[in-house]
Amino acid sequence: MDHLGLLQRIARPAETKIVLLVIDGVGDLRTAEQPQTALERAETPHLDDLAGRSALGRIVPVAPGVTPGSGPGHLALFGYDSTTPEADIGRGVLEALGVDLDLDAGDVAARGNFATADADGRLTDRRAGRISTEECERLVAKLRDHLARNPVDGLGEVTLEAGEGHRFVLVLRGDGLSPHLSDTDPQELGVEPLDPEPWNPQGEPGPGAGETAEKVRALIATLQEALADEDRANRVLLRGFSSRPGLPGVDELYGLTAGAFAGYPLYRGVAKACGMRVVPCGKGFGEILDRVEERWEDFDYLFLHVKQTDAAGEDGDVERKAEVLEGVDRELPRLLDLGPDVIAITGDHSTPAPMKAHSWHPVPLLLHGPHCFVDDTRAFHEGEATRGHLGTFPSRYLMGLLLANAGRLAKFGA
Amino acid sequence: MDHLGLLQRIARPAETKIVLLVIDGVGDLRTAEQPQTALERAETPHLDDLAGRSALGRIVPVAPGVTPGSGPGHLALFGYDSTTPEADIGRGVLEALGVDLDLDAGDVAARGNFATADADGRLTDRRAGRISTEECERLVAKLRDHLARNPVDGLGEVTLEAGEGHRFVLVLRGDGLSPHLSDTDPQELGVEPLDPEPWNPQGEPGPGAGETAEKVRALIATLQEALADEDRANRVLLRGFSSRPGLPGVDELYGLTAGAFAGYPLYRGVAKACGMRVVPCGKGFGEILDRVEERWEDFDYLFLHVKQTDAAGEDGDVERKAEVLEGVDRELPRLLDLGPDVIAITGDHSTPAPMKAHSWHPVPLLLHGPHCFVDDTRAFHEGEATRGHLGTFPSRYLMGLLLANAGRLAKFGA
Repeated sequence: MDHLGLLQRIARPAETKIVLLVIDGVGDLRTAEQPQTALERAETPHLDDLAGRSALGRIVPVAPGVTPGSGPGHLALFGYDSTTPEADIGRGVLEALGVDLDLDAGDVAARGNFATADADGRLTDRRAGRISTEECERLVAKLRDHLARNPVDGLGEVTLEAGEGHRFVLVLRGDGLSPHLSDTDPQELGVEPLDPEPWNPQGEPGPGAGETAEKVRALIATLQEALADEDRANRVLLRGFSSRPGLPGVDELYGLTAGAFAGYPLYRGVAKACGMRVVPCGKGFGEILDRVEERWEDFDYLFLHVKQTDAAGEDGDVERKAEVLEGVDRELPRLLDLGPDVIAITGDHSTPAPMKAHSWHPVPLLLHGPHCFVDDTRAFHEGEATRGHLGTFPSRYLMGLLLANAGRLAKFGA
Repeated sequence: MDHLGLLQRIARPAETKIVLLVIDGVGDLRTAEQPQTALERAETPHLDDLAGRSALGRIVPVAPGVTPGSGPGHLALFGYDSTTPEADIGRGVLEALGVDLDLDAGDVAARGNFATADADGRLTDRRAGRISTEECERLVAKLRDHLARNPVDGLGEVTLEAGEGHRFVLVLRGDGLSPHLSDTDPQELGVEPLDPEPWNPQGEPGPGAGETAEKVRALIATLQEALADEDRANRVLLRGFSSRPGLPGVDELYGLTAGAFAGYPLYRGVAKACGMRVVPCGKGFGEILDRVEERWEDFDYLFLHVKQTDAAGEDGDVERKAEVLEGVDRELPRLLDLGPDVIAITGDHSTPAPMKAHSWHPVPLLLHGPHCFVDDTRAFHEGEATRGHLGTFPSRYLMGLLLANAGRLAKFGA
């Protein structure tokens, strides 16, 4: 039996609340140049106090050496094996779910960028000078309008939704569409955008890919007609064509009523793909806690997502990363005061400042609950986590520990 | 997706060099009688200094409690799941590859021993008094000659190659041959050599096993005719009948140009079966480093194999094992001076002196590279390795860590 099947079989209801606080990219490195990780550097009295009453350990998002994107990183935290085909959630789907578009089975979603090309059609800016969100909304309205007057033959329903800055989301709904299309974003300047082609990174493109590619080329031509008189945003780039995967939700798997409190679209998208209800909230941890306090009674599993640690890590700024952690620490008592039965504090992956990128390194984990084993650790950081009671294990096993500590798993076998 | 498939999917090229230094059987035990392991006993200032700038951990070759042979031990280090049928490389194949014989798919290889039998045909020495390599070469030439004049009906091409001492290799090439034959070496004295019989440890013997067994019996009779006038080497014993497995190479899997620097045939054979190029070299670590220095530019992955620790462990001689380690330590700066981007120092398994044999115990691992996490460990031995940042994990995950540290793995998923 696979692990999810086992958990589903023994999951049982209980009157308990679980909080999973994901501090994005929290794990960091010690190197010759950076002798302390962000967690070691930060003053975090509340986290350290909690660590003294909790069990620590470390989780490995996918496998040793494998650096996860945000999708696989979070799926593993919710208990899924992110290497299975069903767990392969495309970027387009994540973005669409994140901006609250509904996706039916068979719909094809893509992430869009407005971009700038010169008179020869060569890209000069893949983000159209990072236009404002208001500008993006104006452009999307213009595209919708033009498309309503010039529909693309046989393409069915086309939805366009503005995102932040230069970003938008495209959703296609119709018979026989295929998500097996290559990106049109060439990821470099000085060249023309690419044509979408039939493409499937996991094998042969499925049926309909050729026809869908043809229709999407026609759609792109139509959209660019509408942008012909724009100075900056005169091109659209599309990537991450994908359809909604068939993941069973956390409600169905574990019997949880789950709420996702995240300020950024991507994480809302992943949570929604896993059967959680999304509670829109601001981006700071304090704003997230405002919503958590309001909606505390509505859920028995609350996923809270703090993004700024990851951003600081990607900027290579260990000091700012530590400051974000200190900010989380200051607000932490508000969360604890709500009295969750079980709380886990960890990350979806490490984003070490010295690497300025996601990495494969194990992520520190703090687990607090009535049966968590109070180990000898006295602070929340990588060094202490290495010697904690929980040991080091794949992230996807965390869900079982949360459920167990919350009294939500029955004994297995007689 | 299985782990190898995942690594293959995300492997990407980089201008980096990886060194894997395998100190065979390096792991040891503490017992009441032997309070220090070989690594703890040895004075290894260079290894300890490197440990202070590196991450330590431990690897488990196959599974807890499972003692690996050299084949599975090394396959795991190269990233393979050594318990799959494809990874089941027979002793015959390893020996044949190790003495640089070419093996096509379908060829059947076996390891041979010259042995002594009395007038009744009962074995009195399974190694023919450990004859010299020169003597072995003379005998193999004699066998070839006899066989050329007395070919075995329907057996196709027969290759015989002398090895060290009493050892030789047999390779059969022809249509419809099966490797599913039992050993003729009875592994005891006072009995006659066994006849080869159809035999497959993993299930039913495949097609052709019966006929192949019959032909090999005829071959053995012919070979022993040639030895009838020999005093000592009057019998041949064959074991490890096997065909080349279908393992994808490390070039195909990870995009590595890999070189194997090993003084002993068996390890050259394993490396060759995994798609590495073999650089013949002497048996001492210094001689190995001579070749490594010469061929440094030719490879981006260099596998170095030091054998003498294992031999000392099998002899139960912890002091000699420690001396070998001190010798490796003295030469280590030469390797570090070459400037590998990533270096791992570990073993294929433990060979504790108190056990005088391979064992299942976790093997200390040192990993040095730009993103290795400089942990709190300050020496390279079992005790420090237990508390290192890398934790304890199956050996086959080491390859992912090496590739990741060398910048040779792309991010997984959006």
